[in-house]
Amino acid sequence: MRPKTIEWTGKKMRIVDQTRLPERLVYLDCSTPQQVWRAIRRLEVRGAPAIGIAAAMGIVLGARRSRAVRYKNFMKELRGIAQYLGSARPTAVNLFWALKRMMGVAEREKIDDIPLLKERLEREALKILEEDNIVCSAIGQHGAPLLKSGSTVLTHCNAGGLATAEYGTALSVVFAAHEQGKKIHVFVDETRPLLQGARLTAWELMNQGIPATLICDNMAATVMAEGRVSIVVTGADRIAANGDTANKIGTYGLARLAAAHRIPFYIAAPLSTVDLEISSGKEIPIEQRDPDEVRKIGDRQIAPRGVDVYNPAFDVTPAQFIKGIITEAGIIRPPYRRNIAKAFGKKRIQLRKTGSAAGKPKN
Amino acid sequence: MRPKTIEWTGKKMRIVDQTRLPERLVYLDCSTPQQVWRAIRRLEVRGAPAIGIAAAMGIVLGARRSRAVRYKNFMKELRGIAQYLGSARPTAVNLFWALKRMMGVAEREKIDDIPLLKERLEREALKILEEDNIVCSAIGQHGAPLLKSGSTVLTHCNAGGLATAEYGTALSVVFAAHEQGKKIHVFVDETRPLLQGARLTAWELMNQGIPATLICDNMAATVMAEGRVSIVVTGADRIAANGDTANKIGTYGLARLAAAHRIPFYIAAPLSTVDLEISSGKEIPIEQRDPDEVRKIGDRQIAPRGVDVYNPAFDVTPAQFIKGIITEAGIIRPPYRRNIAKAFGKKRIQLRKTGSAAGKPKN
Repeated sequence: MRPKTIEWTGKKMRIVDQTRLPERLVYLDCSTPQQVWRAIRRLEVRGAPAIGIAAAMGIVLGARRSRAVRYKNFMKELRGIAQYLGSARPTAVNLFWALKRMMGVAEREKIDDIPLLKERLEREALKILEEDNIVCSAIGQHGAPLLKSGSTVLTHCNAGGLATAEYGTALSVVFAAHEQGKKIHVFVDETRPLLQGARLTAWELMNQGIPATLICDNMAATVMAEGRVSIVVTGADRIAANGDTANKIGTYGLARLAAAHRIPFYIAAPLSTVDLEISSGKEIPIEQRDPDEVRKIGDRQIAPRGVDVYNPAFDVTPAQFIKGIITEAGIIRPPYRRNIAKAFGKKRIQLRKTGSAAGKPKN
Repeated sequence: MRPKTIEWTGKKMRIVDQTRLPERLVYLDCSTPQQVWRAIRRLEVRGAPAIGIAAAMGIVLGARRSRAVRYKNFMKELRGIAQYLGSARPTAVNLFWALKRMMGVAEREKIDDIPLLKERLEREALKILEEDNIVCSAIGQHGAPLLKSGSTVLTHCNAGGLATAEYGTALSVVFAAHEQGKKIHVFVDETRPLLQGARLTAWELMNQGIPATLICDNMAATVMAEGRVSIVVTGADRIAANGDTANKIGTYGLARLAAAHRIPFYIAAPLSTVDLEISSGKEIPIEQRDPDEVRKIGDRQIAPRGVDVYNPAFDVTPAQFIKGIITEAGIIRPPYRRNIAKAFGKKRIQLRKTGSAAGKPKN
């Protein structure tokens, strides 16, 4: 029932074209870094963890096409490809995390055996893909105790299976609680302008038989005031070392509204979403997107032509409004600077605890 | 430049079909109460003050078609028409206010001169239309001092000329400040699901040459956090005696977000929007609309078919989050229960002060 968002066929990267959902489930094959770049830029593949995986596969595809026979030349090409893929979208750090990890593999052994390097790169990309499943399952296991039978979850955008290889982050928590037999109801923000909630999250929940109610973003406050939201859980695109979190535009407002209604607000994300190199959310670059995403829906003009538009793809929620960050290493609580650093230390143990085989540190 | 939202041609009611904007400026004639009912229900005419005027004209059109020769029979028909028109939309009180006022005219003189009664009803409807212009201008004059040159106003839905006969309520404040030479910038919430902000407010502001930036509803919090909003002003569909205010869905969330960012939040509405018969917002009936308004945009399906949807057309903002209510009788400040009652007393004086000719009490 759950489609594989992103797969490696052995020769190509195969993704669900998310711009076609929910009307059509169409798969799209990419066999060059250019095609991967375009798929990321056009949001055919989206969600911070998924674009990390896609970028890793983009490196493999680029490496394969290299005719270099010397290590130095090969690396020069590879760095160019990594830089190119990194330019597809600026906010989600998983993209850069995956590229760095791939480059690390190639940089570790300075050998002229290019076919061997290509093989190692492919193996690493597959490892990133497999780990994503394990990490997302662990997020679900750690988050599920926050929900009890009868809980209603409000979520924004899509942090589901479609944002990762298969299970999701915020939705993994819902899926895990549901599989444990708890009765969960989800309110889904439609998430303008690109409607990932309406198109993707509602579709995933319906596929899994989980009761879901679609609302416009501006209805969230009312549903909260009516006492119909137990908890808010969203994904993340980049988390600073102090816990400030960039996520889909609208998340910040939800966090403030949750605080105003005394509803706990949680982030669910793999540790690969944490950017330890930046100290606070102020340093996170925010992608500005095409004004026509707001002026039009599909081909339909919904605003005067040429009207001025502000269209940031993300916002930053200050750590003080986040009750906890659900990761594969457990739920990180404030104070975040200390506890995020700590989580990176114990990651190995917590992965083992969930019974996963991939109990090795990632880097 | 500013189209007449609603006009009386002498024989018919002529309205701007607001479902066609901003792509086409199309006028629509209604010559029966049924056509008026449908125009209100379909939001071809919308905005609390405008639907009040439309309802009054609906009574005139219905009265004209009556063949009754006895007062008793005529009144029976008229009451049926009023009840029917009142069923078009439940939340905006101006609809009921206008119907009550029209019925009052017919009830005052119990005479069998039906042609005379028909004439008096027409005159009353025209008076309601004219008064709307005067009242809206007065709202603008009273509200304009809240804005200074360089102020940025955030507004939701359309409380502009298209929501009234001509000038608007919330936008009347902006228009007045602009006419006074102040540099005003407006952030316009697109206002899902029916996009009145994107389609109507953005269009009106562009027509008047007032700088405006369109945002998705979920971006309002970010614009506030960036320090780019001086004041929030919206219209109202019904105000309870204690100041609790029903307005377009999303208004309540904005009010909470404004409070969180210490930004003043104002309502702009004529006193005809106040329903003294209800004591608090809890008693305001909230219209629930077709789920397909959320599932589709135009003909385009944007969510899975059959997904459960919650689609309240309005929400209620508790009085405690409202800094003031800008009316034709001045700005009403807390405590609202006392000061709203007071405003009804001094309405006459304040209307005179703005130089209007219609210094008579309305009822």
